[in-house]
Amino acid sequence: MQIGIVIGNVWATRKEETLNGLKLMVVQRLDLASGKLAESYVAVDCVGAGRGERVLITTGSSARKALRDRDTPVDAAIVGILDQEEMMGKDAGE
Amino acid sequence: MQIGIVIGNVWATRKEETLNGLKLMVVQRLDLASGKLAESYVAVDCVGAGRGERVLITTGSSARKALRDRDTPVDAAIVGILDQEEMMGKDAGE
Amino acid sequence: MQIGIVIGNVWATRKEETLNGLKLMVVQRLDLASGKLAESYVAVDCVGAGRGERVLITTGSSARKALRDRDTPVDAAIVGILDQEEMMGKDAGE
Amino acid sequence: MQIGIVIGNVWATRKEETLNGLKLMVVQRLDLASGKLAESYVAVDCVGAGRGERVLITTGSSARKALRDRDTPVDAAIVGILDQEEMMGKDAGE
Amino acid sequence: MQIGIVIGNVWATRKEETLNGLKLMVVQRLDLASGKLAESYVAVDCVGAGRGERVLITTGSSARKALRDRDTPVDAAIVGILDQEEMMGKDAGE
Repeated sequence: MQIGIVIGNVWATRKEETLNGLKLMVVQRLDLASGKLAESYVAVDCVGAGRGERVLITTGSSARKALRDRDTPVDAAIVGILDQEEMMGKDAGE
Repeated sequence: MQIGIVIGNVWATRKEETLNGLKLMVVQRLDLASGKLAESYVAVDCVGAGRGERVLITTGSSARKALRDRDTPVDAAIVGILDQEEMMGKDAGE
Repeated sequence: MQIGIVIGNVWATRKEETLNGLKLMVVQRLDLASGKLAESYVAVDCVGAGRGERVLITTGSSARKALRDRDTPVDAAIVGILDQEEMMGKDAGE
Repeated sequence: MQIGIVIGNVWATRKEETLNGLKLMVVQRLDLASGKLAESYVAVDCVGAGRGERVLITTGSSARKALRDRDTPVDAAIVGILDQEEMMGKDAGE
Repeated sequence: MQIGIVIGNVWATRKEETLNGLKLMVVQRLDLASGKLAESYVAVDCVGAGRGERVLITTGSSARKALRDRDTPVDAAIVGILDQEEMMGKDAGE
């Protein structure tokens, strides 16, 4: 899974109907080893995430599992909100 | 999912027969965090997208879900047309 | 899907038996937005493609759909031969 | 599969409920050919790995197989702890 | 599929039990267009490959097909040993 920071939202009025009601959030990948921000993409929120939060994102076919609906055309889902990180040589509560 | 801009179309007379009737669009990935355009690829249009529009693209096995036909050999599908974006510290109607 | 140019063939006498009879072509990815050639890889030909042709390539689990055999260990398939491209601001019959 | 080094842990109190009880470890990819460390991401531990250990990581839909639960939204799993490596021209017990 | 060169082996005593008996080989990706070696990773050998050989590697869910066991958590498999390559403007028996 990837760590990301929620940096925004997007809306689409015209869309695949099975996407109705889903919250589409823009996330930017965070590399915890280097501390650098990387590419951004859109993930469906499954846990009530807010902007600025560090989140856990599942990609690919596994993202559909988070929606419980195997037939939704989704390839990235926010499945957790990070509240603690411990890195070797560091120890950081968020 | 990825954000992309529709920049063209391609046609193939000789093709896998299950691709008949599908609209093949060339999209270029847009990184909303940096505002930069990145790589381009081909996605099947499911929502009536036009050139120049910002679209939501699902990749991998999830793209097949947008076609309702599990056996079409497609790995990218346009599943929404963006009409609003809100980024942290910005607020932009399209 | 990706656009690629067929640049060669490879053969393997010793191979997974379900690959018998498949034509293995070397393709190099072409980014239509920049016009640049990128990485190369091997794809199974499903449409009678020849060297030098621009082709449409499906990757991942969707490539297996093009072979109609769900159990062939293939992750890239040529599913179309491009005969026309129209890009924004350009218009190019191949 | 990828080789990685376990460099930390993350915790999420609010998460997809099927993730309850799973150990989320931060791993950094190691390229054995160059010896260089690359990107980091989160993988679910299936084998009792500890920080600093070199591990074998399976990604994508195959990661779900390691959890025996096909419906857990997980895309990376630690499936082995390396105790020996032999590279061409080198021979290194860990 | 990718072309790779077998550059080593790894062993894991503690591992997911469904991986027992599988041969884990380190492969380095070879880009045939440029002739350059790229990233390395671990693939399960299905065809009796040896070090130094050029092999055909299938990745993702398709790798599981090569093992005939849909539930093995494997995402890369060696499915062929290359014995001939023909590139445009070149012609090289191995």
